[in-house]
Amino acid sequence: MRVVVPYTTIDPKSRLSPVLSADERRAFARVMLDDVLETVDAAGYRAEVLATEPIHAPDVPVDVDERPLSVAVNAMLDPPMAVVMADLALLTPEALRESIERPGDVVVGPGRGGGTNLLAVRKPFEVDFHGNSLADHRRIAAAADLSWDEVDSFRISTDVDEPADLVEVLLHAPGSAPDWLRTHGFSLTTTAGRVAVRRD
Amino acid sequence: MRVVVPYTTIDPKSRLSPVLSADERRAFARVMLDDVLETVDAAGYRAEVLATEPIHAPDVPVDVDERPLSVAVNAMLDPPMAVVMADLALLTPEALRESIERPGDVVVGPGRGGGTNLLAVRKPFEVDFHGNSLADHRRIAAAADLSWDEVDSFRISTDVDEPADLVEVLLHAPGSAPDWLRTHGFSLTTTAGRVAVRRD
Repeated sequence: MRVVVPYTTIDPKSRLSPVLSADERRAFARVMLDDVLETVDAAGYRAEVLATEPIHAPDVPVDVDERPLSVAVNAMLDPPMAVVMADLALLTPEALRESIERPGDVVVGPGRGGGTNLLAVRKPFEVDFHGNSLADHRRIAAAADLSWDEVDSFRISTDVDEPADLVEVLLHAPGSAPDWLRTHGFSLTTTAGRVAVRRD
Repeated sequence: MRVVVPYTTIDPKSRLSPVLSADERRAFARVMLDDVLETVDAAGYRAEVLATEPIHAPDVPVDVDERPLSVAVNAMLDPPMAVVMADLALLTPEALRESIERPGDVVVGPGRGGGTNLLAVRKPFEVDFHGNSLADHRRIAAAADLSWDEVDSFRISTDVDEPADLVEVLLHAPGSAPDWLRTHGFSLTTTAGRVAVRRD
């Protein structure tokens, strides 16, 4: 199965700007992308990057499309195919396989806040990643009479957008993103009985 | 299997105080508890409440213990037994069964921020729910030479602590908690491409 990983180089991870500079956010986004690509490969699928500008990625095909995410994905959507977000730092080969191998015309992995972090389609489909995309995708599937299945996965639901999400990366991510964070001064701290992240 | 649901009546859900009064937080915590108890029952397990003071719960046994959570749980821990947090509003019978039916001496459902939202033990064990409890529980299991398994579930990882978590309740909770929120003026809103919650 082709697994397309959309990747933007335009002000990536802007909600991490309280703790990372623009250059650091760019570097960290790339580390997470590489982790996701490795996970896709380890799970036995063919990874592809859909990037907003040419990027250097020696081992995977890179499609460049500078249009908005949904437009760019729909232009290349060719089932069977999966779309997996580039900031799923907690993703493991097992979690990916358990999602993609489910039967069903449309299988989605909900993200926090109504997002769609993973989408596997076996029939023609039109994506809409803006806003409450999970509800939109459910509607689109129903309108096209396609079967619908939702994956219940903490690892897939956790896209890394905000400083609090870095806690999850340090605790659970299997790739090199936790090392990158530690190298850049981040560590776990326990305050008032809760775990947070701090930067030295 | 016995499934113990700890429940505190002492300033419950304090991190929801920006959007709910003290009385409302108490009422909402109780709605979530009842949803969890119904889910435990629907999954075919025997629910018990471990409360900090007597509460009226006609259909389930209530143990009262005003000591701190870990002390109270350890005092009644008698394997095989599961402990499930009272604020898992997204829990479904399927997610619960898939966790509890896993083999293994200790099965845990990680919560966001290093917490332990579900714990099923088949051997004597000592809990410690404070701070980074997931890491502590892993250490305790290793020290006692017990096998360890982690459940990957969005529904189990989502305990309802903060206003942003109410989005997940409105989007995904199967019980009466979403209705309670809507009755109290909460609804979903989409701002800048993200889903949030607002109160009228």
